Amino acid sequence: MTKIITISREFGSGGRELGKRLADALGIPCYDQEIIEMIAKENGFDANYVANISEKSIEAAYPLTIGHRFAMPPLQVMEQPIRVVAAQRQIIENFGKQGDCVIVGRSADTILSDLNPLNLFVYADKESKLERCRKRAPEGEDMTPKEMERMMRQIDRDRAQHHEMYSDNRWGAKESYHLCINTSGKEIKKLVPGLVAFVKGWFGE
Amino acid sequence: MTKIITISREFGSGGRELGKRLADALGIPCYDQEIIEMIAKENGFDANYVANISEKSIEAAYPLTIGHRFAMPPLQVMEQPIRVVAAQRQIIENFGKQGDCVIVGRSADTILSDLNPLNLFVYADKESKLERCRKRAPEGEDMTPKEMERMMRQIDRDRAQHHEMYSDNRWGAKESYHLCINTSGKEIKKLVPGLVAFVKGWFGE
Repeated sequence: MTKIITISREFGSGGRELGKRLADALGIPCYDQEIIEMIAKENGFDANYVANISEKSIEAAYPLTIGHRFAMPPLQVMEQPIRVVAAQRQIIENFGKQGDCVIVGRSADTILSDLNPLNLFVYADKESKLERCRKRAPEGEDMTPKEMERMMRQIDRDRAQHHEMYSDNRWGAKESYHLCINTSGKEIKKLVPGLVAFVKGWFGE
Repeated sequence: MTKIITISREFGSGGRELGKRLADALGIPCYDQEIIEMIAKENGFDANYVANISEKSIEAAYPLTIGHRFAMPPLQVMEQPIRVVAAQRQIIENFGKQGDCVIVGRSADTILSDLNPLNLFVYADKESKLERCRKRAPEGEDMTPKEMERMMRQIDRDRAQHHEMYSDNRWGAKESYHLCINTSGKEIKKLVPGLVAFVKGWFGE
């Protein structure tokens, strides 16, 4: 049975690291930033622009495109975010068809639902997420905890809205996933061997 | 590190079976119905009475005791459910002190929080839960799916209220647990080997 594992995650929960480590341990590819680079390259977009909108709803992507969210956007202004969404969907579908893989974020859980992926959700308490963000913040970035918290909340809200474009299943609600993993105060790498065993059991190995 | 695993579960999700199988695979005791029998024996109560109220809030246990929920109950009428709650707490605390174990339900996650248990929540979609209930219904029991669904909802509501007596953490909210497992359409026994590995990793083995 093809092992497709999707990782949805709260910002700062360590979901990306978990996806990468899980894929490495299973010996299968993990797709995350690669998706952004492919969209940018195939469409001649700036990778930062794609990264900024790739987990937002088309509506939320407008301000970055035209600088004004509430105006009714003319079709040509909507074109860029729509192309990103379409390209992303296509790329994710292709990865799914290619075989075993881990895909991080980008609503892959619902885009690939026909392939019966194992859908994981990774979350943590606020303190653990802030701590993780502080540790991985680029040097020179100087956000206050309050600012960081606001950013975390906004990114998760964007991800939820992105998910709403594809599915009625609510982003972050346990009912939308097969397994929800709380990483509060935990080292991600220590959780991975157990998850590898869980994944194998899930796929009947 | 002492391995205490608590299983909270939606009615019909297979949480009890999961707890029992997990304990067997880990070679540690599982406490579930045993708790009811101990309370009944130690207090001279009928086991059915204890089973009926052991996962309800004291308030919800009144009707079974005095047949009228909205009257202000005199102290002597409150006594029985209070004694059940107190005995249950004591028994769970004692099990926790005795060492590695799995405890199913009864708000053990919060009663034993000082012992750093691994708290699991087991859930499933409505169809899977109804199917599981149908399969394990005693012969002769003849509930319609509608009645069964109503009963399922009521039992989960009781469990949530029981949990509220002990903790502000919401019963069934993923934030209140370390791992949430969706058993929809799955055979419990196939999930167990993976969970065993996860549990061992969690406790640093």
